[in-house]
Amino acid sequence: MKGEIIAIGDELTSGRILNTTSGYAARKLFDAGYSIHAMSTIGDKPRLIEEALLRAIKKVDFIIVTGGLGSTDDDLTNEAVSQALNRPTIPNLEILALIRTHLEARGESPGSTLEKLAWLPRGAEAFDPQSRVAGYQLIHDDTPIFFLPGVPSEMQELMTTTVLPRLAAWAAGPRLKTCQRVFRIFGLSEPNVNDIIRSLDLPKEIIIGYYPVFPDVHLSVLIRERDRKRSVDLFDTSCQMIKEALGSVIYGTEEDDLESVVGDLLVRQEKTLALAESCTGGLVSARITKVPGSSRYFTGSAVTYTNDLKIRFLKIDPLLIEKHGAVSRQTAEAMAAGIRTLTDSDIGAAITGIAGPDGGSDEKPVGTVYIALHCNGRSRVHRHLFSGSRKRIQTLSAHNCLNMLRLFLKNNDG
Amino acid sequence: MKGEIIAIGDELTSGRILNTTSGYAARKLFDAGYSIHAMSTIGDKPRLIEEALLRAIKKVDFIIVTGGLGSTDDDLTNEAVSQALNRPTIPNLEILALIRTHLEARGESPGSTLEKLAWLPRGAEAFDPQSRVAGYQLIHDDTPIFFLPGVPSEMQELMTTTVLPRLAAWAAGPRLKTCQRVFRIFGLSEPNVNDIIRSLDLPKEIIIGYYPVFPDVHLSVLIRERDRKRSVDLFDTSCQMIKEALGSVIYGTEEDDLESVVGDLLVRQEKTLALAESCTGGLVSARITKVPGSSRYFTGSAVTYTNDLKIRFLKIDPLLIEKHGAVSRQTAEAMAAGIRTLTDSDIGAAITGIAGPDGGSDEKPVGTVYIALHCNGRSRVHRHLFSGSRKRIQTLSAHNCLNMLRLFLKNNDG
Repeated sequence: MKGEIIAIGDELTSGRILNTTSGYAARKLFDAGYSIHAMSTIGDKPRLIEEALLRAIKKVDFIIVTGGLGSTDDDLTNEAVSQALNRPTIPNLEILALIRTHLEARGESPGSTLEKLAWLPRGAEAFDPQSRVAGYQLIHDDTPIFFLPGVPSEMQELMTTTVLPRLAAWAAGPRLKTCQRVFRIFGLSEPNVNDIIRSLDLPKEIIIGYYPVFPDVHLSVLIRERDRKRSVDLFDTSCQMIKEALGSVIYGTEEDDLESVVGDLLVRQEKTLALAESCTGGLVSARITKVPGSSRYFTGSAVTYTNDLKIRFLKIDPLLIEKHGAVSRQTAEAMAAGIRTLTDSDIGAAITGIAGPDGGSDEKPVGTVYIALHCNGRSRVHRHLFSGSRKRIQTLSAHNCLNMLRLFLKNNDG
Repeated sequence: MKGEIIAIGDELTSGRILNTTSGYAARKLFDAGYSIHAMSTIGDKPRLIEEALLRAIKKVDFIIVTGGLGSTDDDLTNEAVSQALNRPTIPNLEILALIRTHLEARGESPGSTLEKLAWLPRGAEAFDPQSRVAGYQLIHDDTPIFFLPGVPSEMQELMTTTVLPRLAAWAAGPRLKTCQRVFRIFGLSEPNVNDIIRSLDLPKEIIIGYYPVFPDVHLSVLIRERDRKRSVDLFDTSCQMIKEALGSVIYGTEEDDLESVVGDLLVRQEKTLALAESCTGGLVSARITKVPGSSRYFTGSAVTYTNDLKIRFLKIDPLLIEKHGAVSRQTAEAMAAGIRTLTDSDIGAAITGIAGPDGGSDEKPVGTVYIALHCNGRSRVHRHLFSGSRKRIQTLSAHNCLNMLRLFLKNNDG
């Protein structure tokens, strides 16, 4: 079964808001074995909404429409649907009663714009009239059309709890067996990954995709065949070949991120980590603590933006900073050792560099970054020279720090 | 003039990668006075690419196509364009020479997949054959079509440096005068904002849009009229009315973010800031230091994840933590005062809370967060109870901390 996703909103076609809902829907549908014929984004214009709906109904087996269901005056989806499919809007009495109760409780009189939420095109089946979240389904010309809110969190919840189960119930007949894996790669460029994969001579049924997702490269391995067993066999063999060929530049698969991979390694090795950050300003700490359960291995960090704090917090010898500079191999080492001692952790990691746009010199231009690890009385320091904006340099610094931790722990591991 | 944006890539229709390029292009085009008829996203399938191109050529005045220009085997845009518009691919000799020189320098033989980059549909005018970034223009049926890479940074640069100037040169005739402003609002829900705006009875030419962008609400004020002077007058009056009606919940306009607004206030008042973070793990520090020039006012921060660190770093009385708990009004106050003293800053801010998923109790459930400011010997503490995921609680904590700083500095200001 193939479907189309239509996102509605002037905020999307004027580029003011990034459309994240269509991508989410596409992923969920793809994972569930459907294919997406097209995704379109159009403004809050009834004529365009009509056109898009009528065109899609002719071409696909189901349609997901997001956005324009709210109570404000620029929410026009229901009117446009009503017009396009010749289904006058009528009030859903259950929803209307709920809104009136809500208004009464707040001491407001009926007739609020909120009541607009209750007026749906004829034949609409509201997903959950008792919920504050809008959303309904229509079957038109034997095509199920799902209308979802444009707010990402609401849309995402309805997509998984309601749309996918209903779609599965609707769909019958056999589907292709899909296997897909995405390898997340850091430390090798897309053309280099491509060259390695080409040399493997994978089976022709395997579809390979390369996607640079800064600062990573994602490699997608996909097979879609009728024969279930053969698909799985070809897929497993190919994935194994790719893993062996690429080795440790693969840091994870699917939704893995570096911070969780580092977290898992720390848990497994029962080690604790502390950080001293200068030019990244807390970015590595924030990434580490995004992971649920990170309190098991993360003790804390110091963001030492000034030299004074480096000296006072981390007990770095002022003469060392004076001699080598705050951005130097020696200071990075001292920061890593200092935070480790101060927090009594197993590993101390530190970053010091020049993120720009100011502060560079001939000897140490903007983008110069030192990353140090200290563990068991030994230090390792890497010097990097990144290019680009402040944000890019900060992101690359944090990513390289996490990757250095990963490789250190991985080698330690076995 | 109206245009269409077509994004190509299986990674987009399978939802694995979020399409950010179409939104960027839409915004730039909208700002430059063009309107967007539609945005479509399709897979790397020559037939779909053909269909989309041919449909768009009939409907719009210009087309932007992104993605599928690379050298890997899944990049099929050029082949599809060649087929759709009946323009065989021919090698661009300048690009080919450049690739061969590059391959030679790396000791590689010709015939690499990289050479694919040089084969363009007949009539294609490469933007910059000397650049490593692909991209070209075709005029077909009097319609300019711009082909850009799918990598966001490359696409964005070409969009501003090349596409917009070329499009402006192509477009002649008068255009509508557009004025738009986006107000960024935090601390008032979308329906409440809507109610206030409705009560203002703004001129009918003013188009209002409401967009919840977690955790903010964005309010767009737009006018598009032929009469330039009248447009500007109506627009200015309306914006003034909105600003007065909404007051301090508006924290900025357009691309402003809370961290830059706080930064500007700190610079203006010549104050320095230090942070002590627990449940946000460095998120506020990372946001503050994202802003270029933040070293002028940010001294540093301590991420004190453990009680031990709170005591050792911030010199908090262990008995205070024992008596009230690490997540308490008293500990938040002591953290803010402690980091201020330790770093010798004007303002100390602190966050302590339970981000979950574990660690909650009946008395202090997951989502309980205390945010404290300390300045001039005085403390202020707010208690919050947020709901949702760990990420949501961390984001809301950081956002509220920055907003508390903003309001404190703003009131301080006069």
